[in-house]
Amino acid sequence: MTTQQLAGATVAPQANVYFDGKCVSHSLSWPDGTKKSVGVILPATLTFRTGAPEVMECVAGSCHYRLQGTDAWLGCHAGERFEVPGQSSFDIRVDEAFHYICHFG
Amino acid sequence: MTTQQLAGATVAPQANVYFDGKCVSHSLSWPDGTKKSVGVILPATLTFRTGAPEVMECVAGSCHYRLQGTDAWLGCHAGERFEVPGQSSFDIRVDEAFHYICHFG
Repeated sequence: MTTQQLAGATVAPQANVYFDGKCVSHSLSWPDGTKKSVGVILPATLTFRTGAPEVMECVAGSCHYRLQGTDAWLGCHAGERFEVPGQSSFDIRVDEAFHYICHFG
Repeated sequence: MTTQQLAGATVAPQANVYFDGKCVSHSLSWPDGTKKSVGVILPATLTFRTGAPEVMECVAGSCHYRLQGTDAWLGCHAGERFEVPGQSSFDIRVDEAFHYICHFG
């Protein structure tokens, strides 16, 4: 099920700009300490490193991703999600804009 | 004074992507009907049209802007804002990423 809205969020107004703007996100937090970000990845193939574990939820568009230590490129479409361990990395290949929510922790 | 955080927002998780990604924003709303967006404009010179009146608040970086019907390019830096009438337009020139909050209505 795709998350349609994120309510009650505190929004950091300054964007996170990665890879010359191929990825732009805004950080969100909640009074209970929950942290997420909402972002978009434009067509590109990129590698991201994780600190905390992450769940990447696709809200629109699609991507292919490959987790560190694996060979397979897997697809992720709107309404789907994939998990990335902490202190790891993943490759992501985007052919059309991939809109996501990143759930941390 | 620069807005540091926007609390209690409902966030639309799908980004607004304009001009091939030169401008990326996320739409925010509040239970009282207030609407804003947070976004970033990467180095470019662009023209935006308005529907409702807008106040553009710079939270980081800077820009030069020129309102429809005027000749002067004016500067806007972090902590500053400029107003754009509804049903109008403005040109914006960005040399380093311009992070903004757009206040509508």
